[in-house]
Amino acid sequence: MGLITLLTDFGTRDGYVGEMKGVIYAALPDARVVDISHDIAPQDIEAARLAVARYWLRFPPGTVHLVIVDPGVGTDRTPIAVASDGRALVGPDNGVLSPALLRPDVRVVALPVPPQASATFHGRDVFAPAAARLAAGASLESLGLTHGDAVVRRTPEARRLPDGTVAGEVILVDRFGNLITNLVAPRGGTVVLGAHVVPIVRAYGDVAPGDLIAVVGSSGLVELAVRDGSAQRTVGAGRGAVVVLRPEPWVLTPA
Amino acid sequence: MGLITLLTDFGTRDGYVGEMKGVIYAALPDARVVDISHDIAPQDIEAARLAVARYWLRFPPGTVHLVIVDPGVGTDRTPIAVASDGRALVGPDNGVLSPALLRPDVRVVALPVPPQASATFHGRDVFAPAAARLAAGASLESLGLTHGDAVVRRTPEARRLPDGTVAGEVILVDRFGNLITNLVAPRGGTVVLGAHVVPIVRAYGDVAPGDLIAVVGSSGLVELAVRDGSAQRTVGAGRGAVVVLRPEPWVLTPA
Amino acid sequence: MGLITLLTDFGTRDGYVGEMKGVIYAALPDARVVDISHDIAPQDIEAARLAVARYWLRFPPGTVHLVIVDPGVGTDRTPIAVASDGRALVGPDNGVLSPALLRPDVRVVALPVPPQASATFHGRDVFAPAAARLAAGASLESLGLTHGDAVVRRTPEARRLPDGTVAGEVILVDRFGNLITNLVAPRGGTVVLGAHVVPIVRAYGDVAPGDLIAVVGSSGLVELAVRDGSAQRTVGAGRGAVVVLRPEPWVLTPA
Repeated sequence: MGLITLLTDFGTRDGYVGEMKGVIYAALPDARVVDISHDIAPQDIEAARLAVARYWLRFPPGTVHLVIVDPGVGTDRTPIAVASDGRALVGPDNGVLSPALLRPDVRVVALPVPPQASATFHGRDVFAPAAARLAAGASLESLGLTHGDAVVRRTPEARRLPDGTVAGEVILVDRFGNLITNLVAPRGGTVVLGAHVVPIVRAYGDVAPGDLIAVVGSSGLVELAVRDGSAQRTVGAGRGAVVVLRPEPWVLTPA
Repeated sequence: MGLITLLTDFGTRDGYVGEMKGVIYAALPDARVVDISHDIAPQDIEAARLAVARYWLRFPPGTVHLVIVDPGVGTDRTPIAVASDGRALVGPDNGVLSPALLRPDVRVVALPVPPQASATFHGRDVFAPAAARLAAGASLESLGLTHGDAVVRRTPEARRLPDGTVAGEVILVDRFGNLITNLVAPRGGTVVLGAHVVPIVRAYGDVAPGDLIAVVGSSGLVELAVRDGSAQRTVGAGRGAVVVLRPEPWVLTPA
Repeated sequence: MGLITLLTDFGTRDGYVGEMKGVIYAALPDARVVDISHDIAPQDIEAARLAVARYWLRFPPGTVHLVIVDPGVGTDRTPIAVASDGRALVGPDNGVLSPALLRPDVRVVALPVPPQASATFHGRDVFAPAAARLAAGASLESLGLTHGDAVVRRTPEARRLPDGTVAGEVILVDRFGNLITNLVAPRGGTVVLGAHVVPIVRAYGDVAPGDLIAVVGSSGLVELAVRDGSAQRTVGAGRGAVVVLRPEPWVLTPA
């Protein structure tokens, strides 16, 4: 099928992504390289991991996902390739591939680093060639030896407190300034962040422009949002900020 | 043919665009998804509409254009699909698809929202699946019921004044800081913006670096530009600024 | 094969890149357009040239590289197409295509500008149609007349000084804030930039986060970098800053 997706923190203007695409198309002229993003903040492994969690299973079986956010390039962190749920993934063993590592049927191999590989650009010299080989039909095991204990990162879990509330945190700020939390709230409720007490509503459209609201986002997690605005600017909080979910709508009672 | 273009205001770093591409390729493995942009300013329907006007007819018949700038997601604004001049377009009924709606042969259907669709991400759950079906050859009418009165936005028209001048406005500032106006000036003239009196020249090369000029841009509209610089910074004006066209070159006569 | 790469300084949000892609797909429906970047700083010919040097030969023979950073559009600079080492390149004759012009087997033709072409957007009206024709199999000579003296830009060469050191300069700052120099140092040494005396190490991983180091980058040139940080911010220097290479590690001896 030859479908290879590409997520990096390289930006595009320096030509590094161009080099990787060239390596892929030279090895597999029928490839179709699909850009996911090159705008991950430099070395933000966590943002890459959360993005991968969103898209990797949306693509059809046979897809190869290349994920390169790699502050440890040239150190002893291991380049790996992963087979999981019919897809393949290639990247550094630093947790960016965690969503695929958590599946029961996962297999992982360590990719050898050729002696002539640049110590600063495994994307070009190790990862892109491996992705092209997998997309061309090579077996995972033909690429390297089994790798036993790949690094897994997990989203911190929210904790249920004795009073029935749930304590969580902001795990990501998206482009719209939405604060995405680790709270799961299928039946609604109220979210407290600092001095802000925010009801969970069904959709942005249920409130007026400028209102701070919470919604259940497209991954099933509670997000704080401002209709036609930025919750990040309104609230002045970012990744790691503590949030508390009160399961039922919370009503301010006058004294 | 399977050609699907994609314009959004999602940015790419959060993985939302990746999810949409995955949905498309899973539904139509032979698709070719072409990125137009994901850098539309968040919720800037007007910028999206003007970009669509530029590119939608440049693509060959059979192309499906997916356009998602959708501040009203989850409200009662209607998701629509449009057939116009041999192309199909998919997006929210908020005016972003206006350039195709203004053609005489246009047909519009309302896309049903499945009950399990996320209230915040119709791009993934409504629009991308519809685009994939159209690209696979489905008829427009197989996707939904006819939708009668789609929202049309138009570029504000410049007005001819009694003294023979034409009053218009800046409708867009492009990446180069060029101020694109709604003035049409096939025979040249002079543009006045605040204290600036700017001759229309044929090309940037006709003036010195740093000079503020006006040219007839690639859409036939007058743009203010600074050679090797930014008219936006030089003039300190943006979208909505009033401009006046004097049909003939205007000469300052000494007192 | 129909592989066409695209490097511009247009950004994507205004729809200019969309127009060009439409022109290409309309002329050659089987084309595969590969984005290299649209984030080159406006009119930064030098950054485009250095990016092209990185990727153009990585792609397979038959690839057409479209490179449009064109401050002189509409002036008498010549639109050109180049055949070099089995690839074709299309762009303005301002030096952006220099890496391909320096090969012994290079051929260059001047592209005619049709009378109806926009004076501000040769990307759409001159370059994209030429790229599509080349990708469809047209010969270079069928596109225009031989062009004799194309503009060549070169990276400034470092100079060996009488004391055995080598004087060079920073030629590019990449997205990570790495300062890429024109120094070649296969056997290591020490780089001096202002008050900073920086050892060349093998990889980022050999030092602690926050340390300023030099490494031999993936193009074989010495780069100043800060592990998990930005050398540009740490050093406060950019393109053109003078650097001196001492061939052997330099040891501060106590007085």
